[in-house]
Amino acid sequence: MKRVCSVDPWLVQEDGLHPHDNRLAESLMSLGNGHMGMRGNFEEDFSGDTLQGTYIAGIYYPDKTRVGWWKIGYPEYFAKVLNAPNFIGIGVKINGRSVDLAKWQVESFQRTLDMQRSLLQRSFILVDEDDQRYEVFTTRFLSRTRREVAAIQYSIKPLQQPAQIEMTPYLDGDVVNEDANYGEKFWELMDQSCTTDVSTLTMKTKKTGFVVTAAMRWSLQGDEDSTVAANEGDKYVGNTLTCQAEAGQTITLTKYIAVTTNRDWSADDIGPMAVQGVSEAHEVGWESLLAEHVAAWKQIWADGDVTIAGDDEAQQGVRFNVFQLHQTYTGDDPRLNIGPKGFTGEKYGGSTYWDTEAYCLPFYLSTMDSSIARNLLIYRHNHLEKAVENAAKLGCRGALYPMVTMNGEECHNEWEITFEEIHRNAAITYAIFNYVRYTGDWQYLADYGYDVLLETSRYWADRAQYQPQKDVYMILGVTGPNEYENNINNNWYTNTMAAWNLRYTLEVRSYLETHHAQRLHEIEQDRGLTAEERQLWTVIKDKMYFPFIDEHNVFAQQDGFMDKEQLTVEELDPKERPLNQNWSWDRILRSVFIKQADVLQGLFFLNHEFDEDTKRRNFLFYEPRTVHESSLSPCVHSILAGELGMESKAYELYLRTARLDLDNYNNDTEDGLHITSMAGSWMSIVYGFGGLRVHDDTVHLKPFVPKAWDGYSFKLMFRGRRFLVAVNQDGCELRQEQGEPLTVYVHGEPVSLQNKEGVTIPHSQP
Amino acid sequence: MKRVCSVDPWLVQEDGLHPHDNRLAESLMSLGNGHMGMRGNFEEDFSGDTLQGTYIAGIYYPDKTRVGWWKIGYPEYFAKVLNAPNFIGIGVKINGRSVDLAKWQVESFQRTLDMQRSLLQRSFILVDEDDQRYEVFTTRFLSRTRREVAAIQYSIKPLQQPAQIEMTPYLDGDVVNEDANYGEKFWELMDQSCTTDVSTLTMKTKKTGFVVTAAMRWSLQGDEDSTVAANEGDKYVGNTLTCQAEAGQTITLTKYIAVTTNRDWSADDIGPMAVQGVSEAHEVGWESLLAEHVAAWKQIWADGDVTIAGDDEAQQGVRFNVFQLHQTYTGDDPRLNIGPKGFTGEKYGGSTYWDTEAYCLPFYLSTMDSSIARNLLIYRHNHLEKAVENAAKLGCRGALYPMVTMNGEECHNEWEITFEEIHRNAAITYAIFNYVRYTGDWQYLADYGYDVLLETSRYWADRAQYQPQKDVYMILGVTGPNEYENNINNNWYTNTMAAWNLRYTLEVRSYLETHHAQRLHEIEQDRGLTAEERQLWTVIKDKMYFPFIDEHNVFAQQDGFMDKEQLTVEELDPKERPLNQNWSWDRILRSVFIKQADVLQGLFFLNHEFDEDTKRRNFLFYEPRTVHESSLSPCVHSILAGELGMESKAYELYLRTARLDLDNYNNDTEDGLHITSMAGSWMSIVYGFGGLRVHDDTVHLKPFVPKAWDGYSFKLMFRGRRFLVAVNQDGCELRQEQGEPLTVYVHGEPVSLQNKEGVTIPHSQP
Repeated sequence: MKRVCSVDPWLVQEDGLHPHDNRLAESLMSLGNGHMGMRGNFEEDFSGDTLQGTYIAGIYYPDKTRVGWWKIGYPEYFAKVLNAPNFIGIGVKINGRSVDLAKWQVESFQRTLDMQRSLLQRSFILVDEDDQRYEVFTTRFLSRTRREVAAIQYSIKPLQQPAQIEMTPYLDGDVVNEDANYGEKFWELMDQSCTTDVSTLTMKTKKTGFVVTAAMRWSLQGDEDSTVAANEGDKYVGNTLTCQAEAGQTITLTKYIAVTTNRDWSADDIGPMAVQGVSEAHEVGWESLLAEHVAAWKQIWADGDVTIAGDDEAQQGVRFNVFQLHQTYTGDDPRLNIGPKGFTGEKYGGSTYWDTEAYCLPFYLSTMDSSIARNLLIYRHNHLEKAVENAAKLGCRGALYPMVTMNGEECHNEWEITFEEIHRNAAITYAIFNYVRYTGDWQYLADYGYDVLLETSRYWADRAQYQPQKDVYMILGVTGPNEYENNINNNWYTNTMAAWNLRYTLEVRSYLETHHAQRLHEIEQDRGLTAEERQLWTVIKDKMYFPFIDEHNVFAQQDGFMDKEQLTVEELDPKERPLNQNWSWDRILRSVFIKQADVLQGLFFLNHEFDEDTKRRNFLFYEPRTVHESSLSPCVHSILAGELGMESKAYELYLRTARLDLDNYNNDTEDGLHITSMAGSWMSIVYGFGGLRVHDDTVHLKPFVPKAWDGYSFKLMFRGRRFLVAVNQDGCELRQEQGEPLTVYVHGEPVSLQNKEGVTIPHSQP
Repeated sequence: MKRVCSVDPWLVQEDGLHPHDNRLAESLMSLGNGHMGMRGNFEEDFSGDTLQGTYIAGIYYPDKTRVGWWKIGYPEYFAKVLNAPNFIGIGVKINGRSVDLAKWQVESFQRTLDMQRSLLQRSFILVDEDDQRYEVFTTRFLSRTRREVAAIQYSIKPLQQPAQIEMTPYLDGDVVNEDANYGEKFWELMDQSCTTDVSTLTMKTKKTGFVVTAAMRWSLQGDEDSTVAANEGDKYVGNTLTCQAEAGQTITLTKYIAVTTNRDWSADDIGPMAVQGVSEAHEVGWESLLAEHVAAWKQIWADGDVTIAGDDEAQQGVRFNVFQLHQTYTGDDPRLNIGPKGFTGEKYGGSTYWDTEAYCLPFYLSTMDSSIARNLLIYRHNHLEKAVENAAKLGCRGALYPMVTMNGEECHNEWEITFEEIHRNAAITYAIFNYVRYTGDWQYLADYGYDVLLETSRYWADRAQYQPQKDVYMILGVTGPNEYENNINNNWYTNTMAAWNLRYTLEVRSYLETHHAQRLHEIEQDRGLTAEERQLWTVIKDKMYFPFIDEHNVFAQQDGFMDKEQLTVEELDPKERPLNQNWSWDRILRSVFIKQADVLQGLFFLNHEFDEDTKRRNFLFYEPRTVHESSLSPCVHSILAGELGMESKAYELYLRTARLDLDNYNNDTEDGLHITSMAGSWMSIVYGFGGLRVHDDTVHLKPFVPKAWDGYSFKLMFRGRRFLVAVNQDGCELRQEQGEPLTVYVHGEPVSLQNKEGVTIPHSQP
């Protein structure tokens, strides 16, 4: 654990420079607006340790894979999130000396992420070699209202003597990825143009041919006699502004940027639209641009803030998580998805994992208009044919969605994951089920859902295999969610979700038969589905084999699980943890220890299908064997613990992800934030403490307050209604803010909500 | 299958150029003398497709590993067999035009490997643009009597008109490896010197610091008025000889080379010793040098030829195999071992696999003085401390020998092999057992063997794990010899060999207690072995779990084997074979199909411990499920089939490796020859058809003749006696050639041999 930022409900603030932890601070201070994002890098030159990162949604590069031994089925490439042309850069010189915070004496440095307004601000005092001081203040934001626009204000004030100030706002396309397998550069120049009015830089990615234009304009306040010169270099355009500032006089540069891509514009329009965007921003001006941006964020917080009373660390933690989720994905483009690191780093190359469906979808479903979640589903629907190709590459029928993808093609290249972690398919169909039960949008099944259900069922039916001696269907050679087991047979979670997938497909089919018969007929004819094939699905779901441990009356994570040495995490020497940094891989594999929820993931997903005793027995068996070495692990356990009344356990597990990045728990936040696990942390509060469940077209709550807190509140969105849930030690208050009247169940009792009226429900006595 | 060379008992001959199969021919025409070797590359420039390869024993480079996802326990590097400085090169110009067989018109081309004399010869006619013809004849060899010396004769004769002939013998250090993970060059120049008398080039490998000096001298016949010029370039020294040749006059260049390394000489001596070596060779002259080389090979064939009557293809096949084994390893240097491709290619980087102990050792044990096999054992003994380090890296006590190594350190980097294919440890201890029963050298156990047995036993005892419910010891998470299963539990072969390893260690300990008590005490004190630890070994070997399939009364390859879909190879669509070129890896893993002997490897190794019915049942169960997609697979099955009286099956399996490279069966011989599998092919004849077994200090034979052959013969070496075994359809003849009288058992009956006297034993009637 390492904390470089102070605790504050709305700010993430670094006091003083932390040269050795600069990458960590850069990750924490990331900004994003769904279209683009960046790490908290400095505008001016910096020769200290830094991971420069500017990312544009949907722009990737197919880096050549690196594997030890090629295996049939490996993809040719791994899609990398790309460090894009640097458009924040402002070269600064004071009296001819370049400002570089690694080389100048710096006083009173503060770098501040303002979560309420989505601003990154810095203030510091530079001391030159003559002991002269200069005050610097910077602000930047990525506009929430104009997704292609960014703006930066950079102010310098000599405190003691007049000074010559030179500022060079620039665009630089000569960028590299640290995460490039063979050290290649991924961008090439298409065009550049440099005037003192507007400058543009157009770069193109090799192979993928993504085109990005950045356009820049600026304005200057504080010196009317400044001079300006345009200067160009290789993949570089800049304007050098030279000013004279009196002592006490502030020189302020405002840099406006617009970034357009050929994902949104035709080849002819990319450049002109960037110029138009930046010119409009320049015209509107800093104050108005900022005001509309802040107003948009105000609405986001009004709709979705989570408050925690009596615990500022927890308050900051949950706000940071909600803030970063909204920075990463806005849901207006079904071609985009949520990368594990969002716009905050390069690692985990490809953008989409099953994290999206398993962890992020519930957040967006529960807090935003249903169209946002729907776009996440459409993303997968658009990739269906690629998933069919992917299954065929592995010798199977139907659709197998990739483990990691940008465009529907598989990017991952470890056989035990890529080829075997097939349970991901069910997370995608489960998302359909989850979406429909939240939204009641049954039409989606006819329009998009059944295609995906049909082809995934086809895959499962082909992948499962009949075992005649036992008269069951088995699924051999898989990796479950617990990636500390590879190539196992009959992973209970996989078998359970596969059978569920088949069952849900058949249920949906019955519904469509009644309500959309013609559409059903078309889909099935189009995809060549026969009655025999459907009959087989019924047989397989009924005869699926589910391993069981009689001795403990629990589901068996996989065949042979009880042959392992049965230890619990408590028996481990703390020095050996995390295991993945201390044990060889084979030792991890043959040990009993579990990386993240596996059987329990199934009990979380299919929560409504298991009784409480079953959940309790399995929780008490598996959680003590779980090392939670995935950031996605504690939330599922926390939620189940909450459901089972183990409140302190629920809180303890919640703490593990609540401030994962703010406190750099896993010692890897310098590479970027754990965006997808932030949704899990949100779920720990809302599902875990609040007890949110949705079934039978209704919201159910079972709230409690962790002992360490005075209370907490969150907002929920359900079928067009938004309502506040505020919980304290005495009870909870529900207040509807939007939409038609709604009945929700609290601790199993119906509560009727009407617009703006609060209802208070005391906690039932135990 | 592709055959570029004609069938001949002693020659491997390519008639006509095969530009598209040049790499294949180059592999087949490889030369070696234990100290160095090379592919059948041309001396003159060649712009066509070629894999240039000159290799010097024990010289390697630690190439940076390439993996998808780093796992704890992976080695930092992969030792690569290095393409060494090219010392065969002779630039040739005729009337000023460079000779390049890819560009000139070539007639009557022949490239011939003479196995009897270990020579590579070429003859061809060049036709120039004026339709003038020039006859070329080349011969080269790597001296069997002077391991650092090579010699080449290159003759050119203008057939029609006089011509200016220019020949430039040179040494070139600017070489690359095709198999370099990041395209690096591995050599740097230390020194070069060029005179028209003697020239030298000294190169050093980066990182490993191996130093190699090549020295060159030459003589010229046919033109007394030739001129000579020394010319140097970057990492290049050459002498250009310009001659005038009349029509019908032959110009012959003889190039002598000596290659020394810092493995054999001190830094100061490497250069002088190369000069001395080449000068002595030059002094002795081509004829004498060749004569002593040929005489040495004559003795090799006299001692170890295998003849096959009535099948020239088979005759050529077995001679090629015996020939290449002798070219690869001479057994005079315990720091060397047998790489899977010997001196014939770069692939499979590291030099030593368990192939050596499992397949090659029996060949050397049965045909050569026991000191040769002993050096193979000493090689592993020298690496014992590295094996202890290797086990510790994986979190285990004792010694785990590496999967692939050059210097005792692990080079391989696929977790499922590197960390899990631990059965290799038992192959190394089995080699000790095998060596001792062949040679009767019990002293070896006290001097070297027990150290290795103790530390490997310690490893097995730590790696096995007690399962209290079943009161057994299990070994979880392994890969057996059948690499088409990964991370399985209780591989029967591994468990069996582990228990055997423990048992043999305890047996050897009993022997040492009686005969070498003091030495035993020293070893155990040195290694801190306690009585408790030894007691545990006894418990583990007695309580080891051996999976069994009741239904078929056979050993189970692993836990859960019968849950797989039970198919046989006959049911496979031939178009899908080989599976490893057609199926995704996960599909291979979950299928029943077996790459190479696994349970049957155990029945082969511990042949004396199982009754014939057990072997038969297991053979009939497992062989039909085996796809033999390792070149090491068929021989073991062939031998077992022979033992079980399935003569045609034994012959069918033998055919799969007999001409593996000559007929390019696996379509990969262009990368190099399958040296280690050649020993398996030899075993198929001697163990399989001849029925050789050694136990109770005695040689046992049970020969039969495959129907396709008239007969065959081989020579055996046993405890200082060499004798011929000649088998035909009527019976077999044994004739001792060397050593004290010996009694061998043929079909269970004792046969007394005396020097030079033949004994004929008719085949018993069935």
